[in-house]
Parts: sequence; C-alpha cells; structure tokens
Amino acid sequence: MTTIAIDAMGGDHAPRAEVEGAILAAREFGVRILLVGIEAAIRQELSRHRDRDRGLPIEVVGAAEVITMSDSPSQAFRRKKESSMHVAARLVRDGKAEAMVSAGNTGAAMTVARFVLGTLPSVDRPALAAAFPNMKDKVSVILDVGANVDSKPEQIRQFAVMGEIYFRAIWGVKRPRVALLSIGEEEMKGNELTREASNLLKQSSLNFVGNVEGRDVFRGNVDVIVCDGFIGNVALKISEGLVEHVQGMLKKAIKSSLSSQIGYALSKRAFDDFRKRTDSSETGGAPLLGVRGITIIAHGRSNPNAIKNAIRVAGELCRARVNEKIDQELSAAAVAAQG
Amino acid sequence: MTTIAIDAMGGDHAPRAEVEGAILAAREFGVRILLVGIEAAIRQELSRHRDRDRGLPIEVVGAAEVITMSDSPSQAFRRKKESSMHVAARLVRDGKAEAMVSAGNTGAAMTVARFVLGTLPSVDRPALAAAFPNMKDKVSVILDVGANVDSKPEQIRQFAVMGEIYFRAIWGVKRPRVALLSIGEEEMKGNELTREASNLLKQSSLNFVGNVEGRDVFRGNVDVIVCDGFIGNVALKISEGLVEHVQGMLKKAIKSSLSSQIGYALSKRAFDDFRKRTDSSETGGAPLLGVRGITIIAHGRSNPNAIKNAIRVAGELCRARVNEKIDQELSAAAVAAQG
Repeated sequence: MTTIAIDAMGGDHAPRAEVEGAILAAREFGVRILLVGIEAAIRQELSRHRDRDRGLPIEVVGAAEVITMSDSPSQAFRRKKESSMHVAARLVRDGKAEAMVSAGNTGAAMTVARFVLGTLPSVDRPALAAAFPNMKDKVSVILDVGANVDSKPEQIRQFAVMGEIYFRAIWGVKRPRVALLSIGEEEMKGNELTREASNLLKQSSLNFVGNVEGRDVFRGNVDVIVCDGFIGNVALKISEGLVEHVQGMLKKAIKSSLSSQIGYALSKRAFDDFRKRTDSSETGGAPLLGVRGITIIAHGRSNPNAIKNAIRVAGELCRARVNEKIDQELSAAAVAAQG
Repeated sequence: MTTIAIDAMGGDHAPRAEVEGAILAAREFGVRILLVGIEAAIRQELSRHRDRDRGLPIEVVGAAEVITMSDSPSQAFRRKKESSMHVAARLVRDGKAEAMVSAGNTGAAMTVARFVLGTLPSVDRPALAAAFPNMKDKVSVILDVGANVDSKPEQIRQFAVMGEIYFRAIWGVKRPRVALLSIGEEEMKGNELTREASNLLKQSSLNFVGNVEGRDVFRGNVDVIVCDGFIGNVALKISEGLVEHVQGMLKKAIKSSLSSQIGYALSKRAFDDFRKRTDSSETGGAPLLGVRGITIIAHGRSNPNAIKNAIRVAGELCRARVNEKIDQELSAAAVAAQG
C-alpha cells in the first residue's frame, strides 16, 4: 500500500480540509496516509469523523511548527525545521512515505522539498507542473510554473522530458504532444531562450510539435507546454485572475435584474458546470517534478476535494514510478549527448 | 482637424469594417480620414453608404499592394513597399496625416511603423500597449505586449514612462499607478530583469507602486503594468484564449438543456454585458508607443466599432501631444542621468 505524507497544517482551511481530504482519499484509493502537524488539532478534526471512519489507514505524525503563507520561503526553510512541511519531507526522505502533499506556502513547499529530498541525479532544476483544462475537455500541462527563473535551454529540455512522463502517467497518453510556449509559431518569433530550446527539443526523441502561443494553452492541440518558470507563473496567475474576474462579472450581471435571476436559476446547471471546469480542485495539485520523492503542491485554497485529488495524483505518480523513469530517460540522454 | 490615415485593407473584414468604422468616427469625432488601399474596393464599400454620408471628411488614397496575415513581417516590409500599410505610414511621415490605424498583420504593422516613421530620438525601442478591462470597471494597460523580446532594464523604464503618458491622455488619471509584472510582490521573487528594472523604476519620478503578479492584471489596483514583450504577449494571448474558452463553455452549457436555454433567454442581458466587457472592440486598439507619429494597431478581427474606437484613441493621442511629452520626459531623464 502506497504511503503518503500530508502536511496537515498548510492550506487556508487547515487542518480541516486536509483531514477530510485524507479520509476521502483513504476510503476511495486504498492509500495509507500520514497526517503531519500539530497533533491535538489534527486529532480533534479526526474525532469529527471517528464513528464512521474507524479502521481507515490514517496515522498522525506530530510536528511542532507551522509555516504560514506570509513566511519567506528561504527563512521558513532554515528556521522552522520542525514544521509539518519539513517533517513530511523527512518522512519521504527516510523511506517512511513515498510521497508528500502540501497545500501550504508554495515557495516554502518547493524549497523544503528541493533541499530536504534533493533533486534526482540527472535533473538540473525541479519544475512545478500545472494542469490547465482546455476546450477539448482535456487538460494541457504547463511547466515550469514558478520553481525557476532565468532557465537555460537544457533545463527547458529537461522540463519537457519530465512533463511528458508525468502526462503519460496521469492521463494515459502514449506519446504526449510537447510544445514550447512562445509568441508565435515561427521559430524566429521567440526570444533567445526559445530559439535555443526549440533546437534542443527538435533533436530530442520527444513528440515535439513546435512552438505555440498563449491562446493555444486552451485549445487542446498539445498536451505538454514547456517554458521558463517566470513565464509559466505569469500564465498561471493571469488565468486564475481572469477566471475570478469572469465569475465576478457573471455574478454581478445576474444580480442586476429579476429576469436575470430567474434565468440564472434555470441555467444553474450550466453555471455549475462552468464553475467545476474552472475549479482547480479537480486537477489534483501541481507536482514538483525532479525531486527525489513525489511531491504535490496543492492550492492554498484547497477544499477537501482538492486534497483528495492531490493524494490521488500522488499515488498514481508513485505507482507509475515516475521518478525512476525521469532519471532513466535523462541519464540516457546525457550519455547519448556525451557519446 | 486631426487627419488620420486608415490602412483599409488590413483586417479580417477589410475593407468593409474599416470603411464603416471610418464613417462612424468621422460622424462622431470630427476627424478627417484618409482611407488607404485598393481604390476600387474602398469606393465600392463607400458607395453603400453614399446617400447618407455625403460630405463627411473622408478621402481615398490609392495603394497597389496588400499585406496579408500570413506574410512574414520582415519580408512584407521589404517587398511590399506599395502596400496600404506602407502608404499610410508614409502619409504620417510626410505630415499628411497625424496618425495611422491598421487592423492588419500586427508584426508587419509594427515593422512598417517602426522603420518608415522611425523611433522618437530618446526612445530605444517602441512598445505595444494593450488595455485589459479589470474588476473595477476600468482598464489596466500592459506594455510591452510583443514589440520586443529580451528587453533591457532601461527599456522597461522607458515603457513605464510611455505607458504613464498614454494612460493619462486616454483615461485622464493624473498620476497613474505604475507597476512591474513579476511573480510575486517581493523584489527577490522576480528574475534578473525585474530586479534591475524595479530598482530603476524606484529611482524614477513615476508613481511606481512596486511589483505585481499575473492575477493583479484584473484587480484594478494599478493602471500601467510594464514587462518584457515576450511576457506581455503571453499574458495577452492567454487572456484572449481563456475568454474564448469561457464563452465556448458557457455556450455549450447553455445549449445542454431546455431549462438552460430558457434561462439564457432571460439572463441574456447579463451575457451581453459579459460579452461586451470582454470584447476588445471597446478598448480602441493598441498604440505602438515611441514611434514618430501616432500608430494604433487594432485586432485583426476588428468590427466597425473596434475601428471607430481605434480612430478615437488615435485622435485623442494626437490632441494630447503624447509623442512630444514622451520625448520631453525621456530626454529630461537622460540629461538628469548624465548630469
């Protein structure tokens, strides 16, 4: 049984969302869960579910400190060594869990995972991968969405390899279509980084379909889109901001008249569908690919469903032996490049 | 009377949308219009409006060639010297018009404007500025959205100065709030470029409010957001793609049941409002700031209303003497830096 360590103190609704998500996941996916954090707080949440969920493979592991959303990632990493994030990462490092999930401070979670677990031998820099729902009712994965800035072309190539393996593991596509995010399809249209990265990707054994632009993120013509983490983070935050904005506009417009309100009541299913499709809780969090040990970083606002799905993805990545595959593929490429 | 040259052959609906937009603008704003392109085609469109609009200050200027959306910008610039874009730009260069508007191939329009008109003496690189509607029912302007890649910190500072002057001219805000697009508010969170640019902006006389992230684009807490053109282009295209995606999802969801359809009919005003707010035809196109002569680049899909609004903005930028102000401000800053 796969064991997954959950930072139970991370998210905006911690530990309630984490505990409930863990229970849902343990019931549904047959995984063993270690809930890491302030014991009393976690046990209190667990007690709300006790009668029904006795016997689920959930254990509590104490951690004395909590990293907050306002902590600086580097300071939190250095100074809060007994945080639930650190303890969860050490459980993975020491082989007591195969994966960790945190909905806490993203920067801190990346720093802790990267430096407690270390990177895979063949990986220069870990990358954070986010799934964007697209028009074909599938997802496109973008990486890196913020683990790195000022990436080198070779790192972009590594992101592509990692993204391809992740996509195959979770969405079962044999040869995911890999693209490079640029400002036009023609190679000359990009910047220095994309021109060099595009050359490397063409020479690789990946199913590289070329450069795409921002609007292709939602068109569903490609599966994995690679870019520098600064670009990817802007893309992610712009999308989140715009969805928030659109939901706000619709809400306001609907409230504007009685007929709109009646109309809304009648088309509520359509709106719920829209909300569900733009809801990040379905996509299962963002894996930090390239570290030794599966690490999933969920949104701070994660509800129990989001935590459950992050645990599902963590379990699937473990079972697919994603890290072994990344290391094999990148080592083989490195040998080929030297040879 | 301000004279504005319109590339009548540029957009996807040319010359119909251009001619109709020009008529609307001439009626409403009291500007003189030169419609540039294939004479017969333009006159045919004009004849559809003749009875009603006799006497409007609209003239036709012939141009033998047309640049298409699939032309390479640099080749179109070099090889189609008699295109409507070239002729429109030469009218501005030679003082026969004060501004040009094109809904054609964006890359070609930028190249033609930049090299036929030249850049202002104190400007390193022209920048394309796009207006994003925000949650406060106002707009935030982002520049550069694609005229440059691999920008230098000093160029970012110049974008900020140009963006501030543009924002003041069109939206009447005395001290627009200027921000730098990054991946977090803390300065350390950016990349090499944003760290250096942020320092320059802090030392400037601008109302620089610091770094913002992607989601702030829609929050309406800042007026002018500066970034490298690669980033800005990704931001623009991601937003356009997502709006298209959302509209598609809503349409599909609404069609899914009879009650949704009735609901839609009742809340149609709300949807129309949403569509209008996400419709770029209201914002008046994107000015290419920093060239000698006002240049507005409108979306290829521009309808007559979009053309009309682009002409409005062109006229307002002329009347506000935006180019004089940009040159004064940047020359003064350059003298101060040397002194």
